[in-house]
Amino acid sequence: MAKAHRLEPQAWSNVLAAMPPALRVASGDTVVTETLDAVGMDGRGEQKASPPNPMNGPVFVEGGEPGDALKVEILKVEPVRDTGWTRGALSANVVDPEAARELPPRDRIEWLIDREAGTVRLERPEPALAGWTLPLAPMIGCFGVAPPQGQAISTASSDRNGGNMDWRGFVAGCSVSFPVFVPGALFFLGDCHAVQGDGEIVGTGVETCCDVEVRLTVEKGRRMRWPRGETSGRIFTVGNARPLDQALQHATTEMAAWLTSDYRLSAAGAAHLLGQVVRYEVGNVFNPAYTMVCSVEKKWLPKLG
Amino acid sequence: MAKAHRLEPQAWSNVLAAMPPALRVASGDTVVTETLDAVGMDGRGEQKASPPNPMNGPVFVEGGEPGDALKVEILKVEPVRDTGWTRGALSANVVDPEAARELPPRDRIEWLIDREAGTVRLERPEPALAGWTLPLAPMIGCFGVAPPQGQAISTASSDRNGGNMDWRGFVAGCSVSFPVFVPGALFFLGDCHAVQGDGEIVGTGVETCCDVEVRLTVEKGRRMRWPRGETSGRIFTVGNARPLDQALQHATTEMAAWLTSDYRLSAAGAAHLLGQVVRYEVGNVFNPAYTMVCSVEKKWLPKLG
Amino acid sequence: MAKAHRLEPQAWSNVLAAMPPALRVASGDTVVTETLDAVGMDGRGEQKASPPNPMNGPVFVEGGEPGDALKVEILKVEPVRDTGWTRGALSANVVDPEAARELPPRDRIEWLIDREAGTVRLERPEPALAGWTLPLAPMIGCFGVAPPQGQAISTASSDRNGGNMDWRGFVAGCSVSFPVFVPGALFFLGDCHAVQGDGEIVGTGVETCCDVEVRLTVEKGRRMRWPRGETSGRIFTVGNARPLDQALQHATTEMAAWLTSDYRLSAAGAAHLLGQVVRYEVGNVFNPAYTMVCSVEKKWLPKLG
Amino acid sequence: MAKAHRLEPQAWSNVLAAMPPALRVASGDTVVTETLDAVGMDGRGEQKASPPNPMNGPVFVEGGEPGDALKVEILKVEPVRDTGWTRGALSANVVDPEAARELPPRDRIEWLIDREAGTVRLERPEPALAGWTLPLAPMIGCFGVAPPQGQAISTASSDRNGGNMDWRGFVAGCSVSFPVFVPGALFFLGDCHAVQGDGEIVGTGVETCCDVEVRLTVEKGRRMRWPRGETSGRIFTVGNARPLDQALQHATTEMAAWLTSDYRLSAAGAAHLLGQVVRYEVGNVFNPAYTMVCSVEKKWLPKLG
Repeated sequence: MAKAHRLEPQAWSNVLAAMPPALRVASGDTVVTETLDAVGMDGRGEQKASPPNPMNGPVFVEGGEPGDALKVEILKVEPVRDTGWTRGALSANVVDPEAARELPPRDRIEWLIDREAGTVRLERPEPALAGWTLPLAPMIGCFGVAPPQGQAISTASSDRNGGNMDWRGFVAGCSVSFPVFVPGALFFLGDCHAVQGDGEIVGTGVETCCDVEVRLTVEKGRRMRWPRGETSGRIFTVGNARPLDQALQHATTEMAAWLTSDYRLSAAGAAHLLGQVVRYEVGNVFNPAYTMVCSVEKKWLPKLG
Repeated sequence: MAKAHRLEPQAWSNVLAAMPPALRVASGDTVVTETLDAVGMDGRGEQKASPPNPMNGPVFVEGGEPGDALKVEILKVEPVRDTGWTRGALSANVVDPEAARELPPRDRIEWLIDREAGTVRLERPEPALAGWTLPLAPMIGCFGVAPPQGQAISTASSDRNGGNMDWRGFVAGCSVSFPVFVPGALFFLGDCHAVQGDGEIVGTGVETCCDVEVRLTVEKGRRMRWPRGETSGRIFTVGNARPLDQALQHATTEMAAWLTSDYRLSAAGAAHLLGQVVRYEVGNVFNPAYTMVCSVEKKWLPKLG
Repeated sequence: MAKAHRLEPQAWSNVLAAMPPALRVASGDTVVTETLDAVGMDGRGEQKASPPNPMNGPVFVEGGEPGDALKVEILKVEPVRDTGWTRGALSANVVDPEAARELPPRDRIEWLIDREAGTVRLERPEPALAGWTLPLAPMIGCFGVAPPQGQAISTASSDRNGGNMDWRGFVAGCSVSFPVFVPGALFFLGDCHAVQGDGEIVGTGVETCCDVEVRLTVEKGRRMRWPRGETSGRIFTVGNARPLDQALQHATTEMAAWLTSDYRLSAAGAAHLLGQVVRYEVGNVFNPAYTMVCSVEKKWLPKLG
Repeated sequence: MAKAHRLEPQAWSNVLAAMPPALRVASGDTVVTETLDAVGMDGRGEQKASPPNPMNGPVFVEGGEPGDALKVEILKVEPVRDTGWTRGALSANVVDPEAARELPPRDRIEWLIDREAGTVRLERPEPALAGWTLPLAPMIGCFGVAPPQGQAISTASSDRNGGNMDWRGFVAGCSVSFPVFVPGALFFLGDCHAVQGDGEIVGTGVETCCDVEVRLTVEKGRRMRWPRGETSGRIFTVGNARPLDQALQHATTEMAAWLTSDYRLSAAGAAHLLGQVVRYEVGNVFNPAYTMVCSVEKKWLPKLG
């Protein structure tokens, strides 16, 4: 029977890597944990760890082996404090190079999170933004598993094993599977945002601390090269790389592989389908690796093979 | 009073460039015209012009001068034949380079368009796609105005003046403004698709011929560097370039310029807004210039300054 | 018998395109002409044409047809005035994006050209550059032929037909062949630099006016997709595109095609050769299309097939 | 007094990371060691470690602290076996995407190394390459120091700390300094090539095992962000990233920083100098991070400040 665990970290990691687990769980168990923000502040305003993006974990999931996948169902992402922050300028890499000369300073900007009302707003808005209030849409910025071959990948970046993908689609109700590279998978998470646009183009979402609950399930023998996931309405793949073109290549290649392996489509059939119904979303265009999400609505998919 | 024109082309152009107009209209007039498909076939299956993407036009819009914009309201895009076609493989540039070795041939694939039912389907589907039927979602692949400085830009590509952007959002109800570079703006259009996914990743949508109606209005003194547009729900900008990163830079820079010039936002204020609510859509990742669309829902915008 | 022509332009073009020729020559003839600088100033300091990069020409070369190549032997490139100019800052696109915030202004900087001494130096050097003198190394920044399909390509950019490649290797003694797309090839040239580093990273070389002499020879049926050339010691191909990765792909693909078609190498054999002896040079990383040159020393080549 | 050490590895690493040192040396000491080839084979044909690029080391250099640099003088790189190998096809990412469909298989190709004659040649050349013999030009493919923040970076890739840069310029006589991120710097090396072209475009040089000798010297307080180096004739910087454009940005930014900090040049003065005399070389365009080298001949530099 599945168990519910609470992970109370004593230490945090700035890399995704094989290391002694903070918690061991069975496949199918749930874990609740409270994350630090991107610079290591907790829900009470105490500095607990160093940037970038300190991770809770890792969680060892029993039975996970290289060649499997780890399915992560995001059950809950809820802010635990009333403030968040962003940077006050577009990142120089998302504007025309000569326009970068005119960017304002990258000041830290404070935001107020109203958990009752479910809203986020600027603490000190300029006049045209007075009263400007966004709905809370909390998401996980950085999560994933230990990478292969002894790598320890910075939580600033991302790769096949997930990491700092900063896609606003990683919300409660979304499920994502990561390829497993080490025994136990070694799952990490942290860096939650109260809300974020596509691309994380100011270099942050509204950075805050969240209570996160996930269900972790080993998918035996589910060979894949990049993260795959689903929501109620669609399936998706994730590619992480620079430039954005390469992230898109990874995500598209993974989606085509999925369609041909699981959905009884030939390579040509996958092209017919994707050509007319594929959707792309920009995860981040700020981190060392950019993130592109490739998705298909489930209604367009053949019955599973 | 606005007039309704019908443009019956005698010749078609494979470039967007200054040339003698096929039609002269007043600002605010509407034009209806029937387009050829991407390889120059008309609605009756006759080869009328050469690829790539032969254009109807140009239309000279009175009063349009460099420094103005030409607003193109898309009033109607309706297929005029019962067939369309695609290419039967993902384009090599959207998959991982080594995976390109395994791509199927780029055969021409036939599709059936049912105008009554409002659907599109493969003529000869493989088993898993039997009965697979998509809703008709006709769009303009290539349209825009003459570029500056005597350039004649291939209808295979796109630039500040529009062109072959192949964004599935260019449907009836969408309005887009192009910067004007020559007297009369010189508007061109063609290359319609019955439906298309994001990115045009097989190198085509379902290529067909359409009856298109547009309203052409000069916006005096509306200085802009890249196309801007709106739908009922949002405003958007368009960037065209390779790599996709640069297309995104163009679109983002144009959106930030729009927000600061028209919506009373400082550069920092525009960053606060875009950082949390911006959306990106991939137009095409096939043509010499890729297309990225940057949008903001109108509900997030300050009152127009 | 080959004739020597002098082209005294009455008008200049800011695009490479099919247009009425300024001069007709036989294949094998030579042409001497004096170029304007990048902004249209002549050797006497008079403004004769508009930027960017006004071209002399076009020259119609008899017998040139689509499918042929036009060989351009650069016989002489000599400055005709005592001054040149550059921009006083690195271009924002060649530095890390956030570093672009700190770039100095793009002021026009004057240089002195000493034709007797064969040197170039700053007119007003800062102390650490006092006495800093470079050898004159005059080159052609922009030259090529009319592109296909009615295109008129800005002299700011480049493509298969050549154009604004800004490679410092285009000096006297170098020969380059362009694919011919229109009858007569229609050769253009201009935009000479007294000296330039790799990449044209301040957006200019030392911009000046030159007396240029070329020999123009039609190479019948020499099918090629990108420019090919040679110096006394090596053969080279040129790719023009963004990003630099794509320019490199074009140049490499063209070189592999050349080795397999003319040098009796299999595709694997071309890989063995290129893998161990290929050289790349960065032409420009400033213009809309970047330029990469791929070369092989002649001593490594098999005997011509 | 400087000591000469011999490092006989018992284990090899596939990452550059902080780990217990295999050897401790004083600043200024020399180290000789024999490397494995890229797949872990030693000079006697025994498989000793796993791919990719197993590293000898790390070497702890006393006195090295974060904020310092570690100067690595390459004193000797000499093959210790008579064979090497390459891949028999251009890498798909260096040719035009659609051309990747036609690439030959990536077979392993054997080469013969004649250490007496100082040559390298194909074991089974096709006819046109019969007798084709290259001079031995042994280089280090992968070397560097431990990266910051607990990262363990795969020896397939590279970053600020060096790694798998695969630049053919890393030969005896070259000196390169890496920024130090951890106490003792922790120097690694391996993956030597008997010869290699620019870009490592078949995915390998002629992979072999070498005897390598280096002198390791701590440069106290030499703050830098990317590797810097020098040969007898020039100084250079190295940028590692994808796309190549970004590698070039890193290398150029680092060179401009060097010129302004050490050579008494203003930012404008650095631009004047680099604009006219900079040279770029492509290290690799195969690995996850590409490598671009930016160099200036010493004769153009102001006296050191």
